[in-house]
Amino acid sequence: MPATLETEGVPLDPWVIREPALDLDRLAFTESVFALSNGHLGLRGNLDEGEPRAIAGTYLNGFYETHTLGYGERAYGNPEDGQTVVNVTDGKLIRLLVEDEPLDVHRGDLQSHERWLDLRTGILERVLVWSTRAGRTVRVTSRRLVSLRMRSVAAVSFEVEAIDRPVRIALQSSLLANRVDVGSGTDPREAAAIGAVLVPRLSVHDGLRVVLAHTTSRTGLSLAAGMEHALETDNPPLTRTESEPDLGRVTVSAQLHPGRPLRMTKLIAYHWSSHQSVEWLRDQVDASLQNALAEGFDGLAAMQREALDAYWRSTKIEVDGDDELQQALRFAQFQLVQAGTRADGRGVPAKGLTGPGYDGHAFWDMEAYVLPVYVFSQPRLARDALVWRHGMLDLARERARQLDLDGAAFPWRTIGGEECSGYWPAGTAAFHVNAGIARAVQLYDDVTGDEDFMRDVGLELLVETARLWASLGYQVAGGAFRIDGVTGPDEYSAIADNNVYTNLMARDNFRAAAAAVERRPERADALGVSPDEVAAWRRAADTMAIPYDERLGVHPQSEGFTDHEVWDFEATAPERYPLLLHHHYLDLYRKQVVKQADLVMAMFTCGDAFTPEQKRRNFEYYEALTVRDSSLSACIQAIVAAEVGHVDLAYDYLAEAALTDLHDLKGNIREGLHMASLAGALLAVVAGFGGLRRSRHGLAFSPRLPRQVERLAFPLLVRDRRLYVEIVRDRATYRLDPGDDPLPILHWGERLTLTGTEAVTRPLPPLPDLPRPRQPAGREPRRRTGGGVTR
Amino acid sequence: MPATLETEGVPLDPWVIREPALDLDRLAFTESVFALSNGHLGLRGNLDEGEPRAIAGTYLNGFYETHTLGYGERAYGNPEDGQTVVNVTDGKLIRLLVEDEPLDVHRGDLQSHERWLDLRTGILERVLVWSTRAGRTVRVTSRRLVSLRMRSVAAVSFEVEAIDRPVRIALQSSLLANRVDVGSGTDPREAAAIGAVLVPRLSVHDGLRVVLAHTTSRTGLSLAAGMEHALETDNPPLTRTESEPDLGRVTVSAQLHPGRPLRMTKLIAYHWSSHQSVEWLRDQVDASLQNALAEGFDGLAAMQREALDAYWRSTKIEVDGDDELQQALRFAQFQLVQAGTRADGRGVPAKGLTGPGYDGHAFWDMEAYVLPVYVFSQPRLARDALVWRHGMLDLARERARQLDLDGAAFPWRTIGGEECSGYWPAGTAAFHVNAGIARAVQLYDDVTGDEDFMRDVGLELLVETARLWASLGYQVAGGAFRIDGVTGPDEYSAIADNNVYTNLMARDNFRAAAAAVERRPERADALGVSPDEVAAWRRAADTMAIPYDERLGVHPQSEGFTDHEVWDFEATAPERYPLLLHHHYLDLYRKQVVKQADLVMAMFTCGDAFTPEQKRRNFEYYEALTVRDSSLSACIQAIVAAEVGHVDLAYDYLAEAALTDLHDLKGNIREGLHMASLAGALLAVVAGFGGLRRSRHGLAFSPRLPRQVERLAFPLLVRDRRLYVEIVRDRATYRLDPGDDPLPILHWGERLTLTGTEAVTRPLPPLPDLPRPRQPAGREPRRRTGGGVTR
Repeated sequence: MPATLETEGVPLDPWVIREPALDLDRLAFTESVFALSNGHLGLRGNLDEGEPRAIAGTYLNGFYETHTLGYGERAYGNPEDGQTVVNVTDGKLIRLLVEDEPLDVHRGDLQSHERWLDLRTGILERVLVWSTRAGRTVRVTSRRLVSLRMRSVAAVSFEVEAIDRPVRIALQSSLLANRVDVGSGTDPREAAAIGAVLVPRLSVHDGLRVVLAHTTSRTGLSLAAGMEHALETDNPPLTRTESEPDLGRVTVSAQLHPGRPLRMTKLIAYHWSSHQSVEWLRDQVDASLQNALAEGFDGLAAMQREALDAYWRSTKIEVDGDDELQQALRFAQFQLVQAGTRADGRGVPAKGLTGPGYDGHAFWDMEAYVLPVYVFSQPRLARDALVWRHGMLDLARERARQLDLDGAAFPWRTIGGEECSGYWPAGTAAFHVNAGIARAVQLYDDVTGDEDFMRDVGLELLVETARLWASLGYQVAGGAFRIDGVTGPDEYSAIADNNVYTNLMARDNFRAAAAAVERRPERADALGVSPDEVAAWRRAADTMAIPYDERLGVHPQSEGFTDHEVWDFEATAPERYPLLLHHHYLDLYRKQVVKQADLVMAMFTCGDAFTPEQKRRNFEYYEALTVRDSSLSACIQAIVAAEVGHVDLAYDYLAEAALTDLHDLKGNIREGLHMASLAGALLAVVAGFGGLRRSRHGLAFSPRLPRQVERLAFPLLVRDRRLYVEIVRDRATYRLDPGDDPLPILHWGERLTLTGTEAVTRPLPPLPDLPRPRQPAGREPRRRTGGGVTR
Repeated sequence: MPATLETEGVPLDPWVIREPALDLDRLAFTESVFALSNGHLGLRGNLDEGEPRAIAGTYLNGFYETHTLGYGERAYGNPEDGQTVVNVTDGKLIRLLVEDEPLDVHRGDLQSHERWLDLRTGILERVLVWSTRAGRTVRVTSRRLVSLRMRSVAAVSFEVEAIDRPVRIALQSSLLANRVDVGSGTDPREAAAIGAVLVPRLSVHDGLRVVLAHTTSRTGLSLAAGMEHALETDNPPLTRTESEPDLGRVTVSAQLHPGRPLRMTKLIAYHWSSHQSVEWLRDQVDASLQNALAEGFDGLAAMQREALDAYWRSTKIEVDGDDELQQALRFAQFQLVQAGTRADGRGVPAKGLTGPGYDGHAFWDMEAYVLPVYVFSQPRLARDALVWRHGMLDLARERARQLDLDGAAFPWRTIGGEECSGYWPAGTAAFHVNAGIARAVQLYDDVTGDEDFMRDVGLELLVETARLWASLGYQVAGGAFRIDGVTGPDEYSAIADNNVYTNLMARDNFRAAAAAVERRPERADALGVSPDEVAAWRRAADTMAIPYDERLGVHPQSEGFTDHEVWDFEATAPERYPLLLHHHYLDLYRKQVVKQADLVMAMFTCGDAFTPEQKRRNFEYYEALTVRDSSLSACIQAIVAAEVGHVDLAYDYLAEAALTDLHDLKGNIREGLHMASLAGALLAVVAGFGGLRRSRHGLAFSPRLPRQVERLAFPLLVRDRRLYVEIVRDRATYRLDPGDDPLPILHWGERLTLTGTEAVTRPLPPLPDLPRPRQPAGREPRRRTGGGVTR
């Protein structure tokens, strides 16, 4: 396991992610961890000078190019085109020449190099001291931000200071398009290599400003990128500004004297569109640059701090007694604000905008992992994401027709709305993505009561997904409603009958659609929903097939699953993980081996379908089979472990989920952060140790404090009011923002009413003392003791 | 359904396939039906002048190029390279210029044009009378053969005669390399487009001879092709011979007088190798041409007739009372001699050498359909094909290791031995190919008693396939041996548990391997087979899981199959077939719809596992689900229909199998003939109406004569002796060639001993009178009445 970034022995600052010295072997790691984004524009944490690098990355949410998906054998209904996020024009680049030597960390003498990301300011800062071979020494201080307020804008403050004696320097600030990085070509989680896809359209410069515009060759999306500069220096430098089709460059030459630094503020702006002309886009870029110039770096930084202060005030999770976990949870919360804040009607990709992994696609985990966090913290972002799904309804209906199905079949992976999965057994067959969307609609509805959304967006999503299930499954005459031949969340099984997670989620989808339709008869009429259709949904829900293995006393993940051979974990060497990179799917599919929570996830999302005894037995059974080759697993295991009473284990899984990126536990952080795991860590706090579930009586809590910490506290946004939950050793306290309506909740089954006037405190039951369940050999989570030490 | 080639009302000649007039819309059809081959070299039935054409085709068995298989998503263990048969240097081309007009069937006036393939002579003949626009008329008679005796050699006799008045003509006889035809790009059964892949290496000419040599760019296989000419004419013509890298050409100009034709004999020879130099290959071509020149066309034709006479003498199936079927069965028998005779240690591709379909790959149906025919007619060819499989054992072992399996995993589709299936659920997962190989070994062993083969080849194939099954399945402690997550013959289901066909065939494989090992302990030691291993095989066989649906009283094809929704056949329009081109696999896989005999095939190959009552119930159950989108189905349905007593239906299926190509029932004959269906038709006669099975008491027959014919007769080669079976209305007669040993057989369960001295006649039981089973709506086979009329 890679160490954290921090220096050993130095106390962790929960607000600051720090790299004390440059580690060239971990550039891919720091590029992802130090990525800045606002949900619209994302910059990887590349060095200012651009090289050395693992992957240069500048991304615009929704800006993609297509490429032909090949198939070993042609087949009906395979998507023909893949979509891949484009690495757009790089505006981060600032190169420094000291006398005649370029600042290159491979050359000269790098005396110190420190970087840190401050989660309160949202600024990535870098300070280095470097001497040329000729012995000239400079200190460089760069600060970078991607504005949460002005979504098109990023800025860099770049300061150079001569240390000992005067020195002449040149700064080259660039816009550079069509740079291509190449992956290993063997890992399915990597982005497709699509080459240089930006066709130059326009390049202009004036003063210290350059604007370049490009259009993608296949998707025809246009993009304008611009940069503007402000210089603070003693004596006027010599400047030169150039533009070429793929390059814009401002060069500044200046004589520096010790104690009198040169500061260059670089302002960057991006606008793109599928329909606007490049000329119009250029106008927008120039306008954004003008606004940014008026604010200056310090103005932008102040706005950033203000936005983040507001965010932290209403969302901050507190963990007392485990600094590392506290820091990791702050990082997770920061990444969630980065991924969604200004997505403004686009999806949240699996990697956010931190890297090109999974081609920049959004998957089911957006609804299943990320949106539940947004619902309780920034409900507008949840709404935006669901509106984005709603916007692809026509494509989803068309896909359903292609598959001989009714309703809408949402894509397993996409940027633009079209299905882009090139391997259908673990793509299109994973129909549960549709129930996940329906579930997110319900949760948003429950927690916000946003009736406009339900009328205009939510209801149609519920109805069209229910219709999908009605046609995908079938009602055995006088018998069960079956859903055969689909794939559940666990990707080490596929095309199985009656996957319990899928069937339970479909049941929930049916019931939610039926209830929503009955509450809004006029709108339902407009959608052509008949009473017969609703009756069929209810019948399907009431007779849904839920296989159960009487012999073992557990639920098989799918029909027949528990009859399969158990994977030989003892014989599987550590380097054979993740199994999918070293074993054929047919080996994985036919055996009992679980990549990620599936039946266990069902016990979280549809807990009512299981007795407490079943939950414990099932959990322990699947623990022994689950290898967690997916970053989507540990957080769900944490939640269910906490529920069934394996509280120590739950804590270990929480830490694993939270540290997935900061410890690079999956070994693929090069391609970007794992947004769902970060979100999942937050869910593990709230739904795991907070025990939060939806219930008929309102939000239900069953708090438990893990032994390793002294206090857990988190706020939730419910109907525009904050509900604070604080858990200490023997009690939990609930406190609601003042307001008009009382809020009913449950505490360990006890009905409470919060009024907003005073806090309510209740005792916690004692922690159960259960024997720790067994995991596959070598796949046990790291045990964590108090104070955040992982053993 | 396309009509047959013949003119309506004219009696069918069972020996001659005739096209009475050129049908330009059916060139693809005649190119395949008139293809000539000897198993080593194949020429499609292209017009001599090369155009118009559907697909120009000249193939050498085993001569292939690779191409990269693309995947929408990368995954472990996917084959990286596909293999595709190469359309090699075309030597068939002879172009005619009359005065200054080229003989082009699109131009001038084609007064008559007749082609016929004579199954006794093996010669494709073409006679046409054509007038130029200028009014000059010629008669052209061309005869073409691919020698069954000299495997590298083909020959064309091309005769031109002026009809009314003298005329000057020019003949251009060519060798032409790197011609590329392009398919539709949408049908998975078509060949991959690999472009011009032959790199020129050598081109030489001398006299009327040209030799060209090429090497494939990726596989590095070298090929030399040559042509030589002999002219018979009154006055010496003016000739010219040229060679270019991709073209060899001999041009002959002559003045023709009515009644004094010019005859050009064109001799063609091909040699290829993976290791010989092109210079050596050229030597071989020159030598072959010299031999062919010495024989001349007439000498080659005489040898061809002699070879075919011998073939027909020992194999000819006779059907009295249905001329169309009789002709179709002759055609089938002819194609089988064409496909295998000189394969000389290479496989028999699914299309033989008649077209590029399925990329020229050999599949499981080689062992399951073609080899059983060879075993009883030309056992050397069965042996050759199994030796070819044995030759790829190292590759198959390597593939098994890649899949974490023991033993050998033979490829689902291949030319060179490597797995080339780009869609593993219907490729690698169809492990039954391995049991099919083991079964063919057993059958060959049983019928020939070839102990050398068993020692050197057969035993190792049995052992390595048994080892595969032992590792692929698993022995439940104290319970069944299960084989989960595999695909049976039916490609409309995939990755299912305990496929009955697969499990029964694996059981048979285990037992055969165990018995063979026990008979040859020393050889078994050399293969490292321990008594424990054999005991495990026997235990697996004895406890093999065979699912049975008690509720319906039928065997599910695989576990859970009968719980699935039945496909809505009523709602499926005729143009939606074949279903795989119009429906997604996930739609097909999750429903009860059967592409091709699977459980029904198990009842043929492993009949002992079923009671007669089960067979009838199962057959009728699967009849209602089987759409026969595969040409591998009808023949097996014929066999089992005959066994369970649906004799009329069996006859309809026999006719469908036999006429698959001559009636182009699958609509894809453009890509070549369906060798397995042709072989299957022969099996349907012998195993269906002859009722032939293997039994402990020797060959068992249960003959039944369909009402529509008066007599059925066929010879079988058993231990080098011919066994003649003749079935008439009320009795069957068995007659054995003279010889030393008596041959025990069964007739409807009665033990008989044939001595070779006199025929034995026994009565037939009366035909059962069962209600005709139901097929899916619109998929009923054509009903056939007496005299070969299809209603």
